[in-house]
Amino acid sequence: MGVGYGLRGELIAVGTELLWGDRADTNTLVLSKALADLGIEVAAKTLVGDAENDLARILSDAMARTSLVILTGGMGATHDDVTTRVVAKVAGRRLTLRDEVLADLRDTYRRRGRDVPPSAERQALLPARAEVLPNPVGTAPGFRLTHEGVEIIALPGVPSEMRAIFEASVAPRLAERTGGAPAFPRRTVQTFGLGEVAIDERVENLVRAAECEVGLLASPKGVELRLRAMGKERTRERLDRIVDEIRRRLGDAVYAVDGRTMETVVGDLLSARGWTVAVAESCTGGLVGHRLTEVPGSSRYFLGGWVTYDNRAKTEWLGVDPSLLAAHGAVSEPVAAMMAEGARRTAGCDLALALTGIAGPEGGSPDKPVGTLVVGLASSSGTMTGRWRFYGPRSETKLAFSQYGLDTLRRFLIGAPPLSLDARPREGEPAQVKGRQG
Amino acid sequence: MGVGYGLRGELIAVGTELLWGDRADTNTLVLSKALADLGIEVAAKTLVGDAENDLARILSDAMARTSLVILTGGMGATHDDVTTRVVAKVAGRRLTLRDEVLADLRDTYRRRGRDVPPSAERQALLPARAEVLPNPVGTAPGFRLTHEGVEIIALPGVPSEMRAIFEASVAPRLAERTGGAPAFPRRTVQTFGLGEVAIDERVENLVRAAECEVGLLASPKGVELRLRAMGKERTRERLDRIVDEIRRRLGDAVYAVDGRTMETVVGDLLSARGWTVAVAESCTGGLVGHRLTEVPGSSRYFLGGWVTYDNRAKTEWLGVDPSLLAAHGAVSEPVAAMMAEGARRTAGCDLALALTGIAGPEGGSPDKPVGTLVVGLASSSGTMTGRWRFYGPRSETKLAFSQYGLDTLRRFLIGAPPLSLDARPREGEPAQVKGRQG
Repeated sequence: MGVGYGLRGELIAVGTELLWGDRADTNTLVLSKALADLGIEVAAKTLVGDAENDLARILSDAMARTSLVILTGGMGATHDDVTTRVVAKVAGRRLTLRDEVLADLRDTYRRRGRDVPPSAERQALLPARAEVLPNPVGTAPGFRLTHEGVEIIALPGVPSEMRAIFEASVAPRLAERTGGAPAFPRRTVQTFGLGEVAIDERVENLVRAAECEVGLLASPKGVELRLRAMGKERTRERLDRIVDEIRRRLGDAVYAVDGRTMETVVGDLLSARGWTVAVAESCTGGLVGHRLTEVPGSSRYFLGGWVTYDNRAKTEWLGVDPSLLAAHGAVSEPVAAMMAEGARRTAGCDLALALTGIAGPEGGSPDKPVGTLVVGLASSSGTMTGRWRFYGPRSETKLAFSQYGLDTLRRFLIGAPPLSLDARPREGEPAQVKGRQG
Repeated sequence: MGVGYGLRGELIAVGTELLWGDRADTNTLVLSKALADLGIEVAAKTLVGDAENDLARILSDAMARTSLVILTGGMGATHDDVTTRVVAKVAGRRLTLRDEVLADLRDTYRRRGRDVPPSAERQALLPARAEVLPNPVGTAPGFRLTHEGVEIIALPGVPSEMRAIFEASVAPRLAERTGGAPAFPRRTVQTFGLGEVAIDERVENLVRAAECEVGLLASPKGVELRLRAMGKERTRERLDRIVDEIRRRLGDAVYAVDGRTMETVVGDLLSARGWTVAVAESCTGGLVGHRLTEVPGSSRYFLGGWVTYDNRAKTEWLGVDPSLLAAHGAVSEPVAAMMAEGARRTAGCDLALALTGIAGPEGGSPDKPVGTLVVGLASSSGTMTGRWRFYGPRSETKLAFSQYGLDTLRRFLIGAPPLSLDARPREGEPAQVKGRQG
């Protein structure tokens, strides 16, 4: 929820290529973070092409909504660079040639052994009475002016130049304007196994009461809560207390905070015990091994694994009984268990995780629909299996399967109960269920 | 440059987290592309938080500028989901409960074996007389209404749901509205093994001469050329001719066009020959197998593989001679060759690819620095090896390694020479070099 005090502003990025959909604009991401650190809230950001009329209307509308507008891009030496002209027009000012900017331009070019191309001299034309914001790393300067109570700051679109000018000339002045308002501290809580609605129901009253903004972000890896302290007393300590309370309410579903990955969490738990792990993957094709090895130093606990995509690989490499495959099918608890046990025995490791499932889009059946996953986890205390279901396209399904597999390892390592309602110890082999940890 | 004819529209993405600078919004990228394909130009896009007042002003302003506004996000079941309320308010309409939406919601939840949570029923409240845009893959529907000559389309923020609704219910209607205006044809040429500067030198004069915009995008998967036909005669045929000429100039470095993935290309080449493949991965940890199995139907040619992260796994599972490991180290041509041969023999497949390298950040040495990769490729005609180097952080290095491995398969399958300068047949076993195709 937007909060109605403190300085707020809007961002405008100028450039037709930003509207193609090929790639995201990064300048406004950088500016958003930098402004949050100054205690300034970004209310909106707009991407617009380099058509003068479009930009003029976008800028006018933004100026009617807010008291601070920062533009990036459209400040170069070509005809398509319209930002300076448009700002001058909207603010009702002439463009005037700035001798000091021209001298700087000539100096910069001279140091590079060249004359200023005539078109580049355009960059010395700035709206009358605008303050020049010198460019320490390039040629095009930024500028700053105030029109009808709205502060307008224009910066070039080259990321390094934008950052350099912002840090040298913009941030200090904005800090004065906010009068030392605190930053907006931010934290992330990552969960797996709870839906957005379930999470919202458990934390809604908390974040409402605590002047804390929360965004829920669902992905195949679970639901992330992105928290930002709001209000006048937006201290890191207060946000930390909220995170603690959220962790208490969501329990074992919280696998990490502040962006640690599931594979890092699992790796640290394995390292802490000095245990080793191997994987036997069917439907995920190697993704679990890939994720475990994204962590530097994972060779301490990850021995390796098998991608037994074909059924013959399951029997020949891991010793899965062909009669079990025939009787239950590849996606079944007995097969997942034998894959895990075969992997653990052959690799000689403490834990082995097996995954077998149907990633789709083909291969489903009424009792084993696309999205069905069965995992097996073999340890010194026996083998347990779990069954799960995910709804999504193939690639997301594989990612979700890998997350469920890694989360099964995590839950086993912290002594938490398995996630799946269907998860159960294999017959005659009780799963080790340890006391819960914090 | 903005083009002054044809239908234009604006996009609004709703979600406070979009303003935090953590990550870019992808929905508006997808929509921008889809609209360009329909010949609709996106004049601007705005990202705004889920504060009702902010969104109401942004939406009103956009409606004053354009005749088509598409919103994404803020359509879920939680209290932060403000889009529907705000559109109703701005368009002066009540929210009404739609029985048919509620029935769909109940049906979707029932199929998943659950009741509709009371809060989720909120999703059946839509502005009066708005047309429901059914959600084929999730719960929250979109909707469409016209207010004072402006068409407003609201779609959920979950990317897969947004896409599904857009394709089913939005694109066909917009196509009617544009009356068959020409699209802005776009194509992509994907290369691996050439740098940006080398590509620029070979194609610069070509794209200058044609009315064609080109952007080069470098990543660990190679360099992509993104092309868009401009001008009034922006025909697909003209762009196709440019692409053909670019392919001719860049040769075997072009592995795909228009977004086909390397794993799809390799899969199609394997399918065409009826060949099978297995992988033996060390440094990539399973990533090559994961990528091969991203392709639906890959079980036809992908048997599986080994992740031999630990040296013991290399010797015990693949039969790599321990004395070779001791003499040459794990990252060496003899070991890569034996891994590939062991994998091919054990899996009984036509081709086997092995990868061994140093993903970093630790583990490098003066003669085998971080970023060194050695691959082995075993086939009926012998085993060849290749050595390569990539410079980047661990995760990008693994991705680049997997791309090099898959490209090695591709080049072998089309009879192109290996990419690496160091690539050479193993001693005494001549690699099969077929005549070049295409």
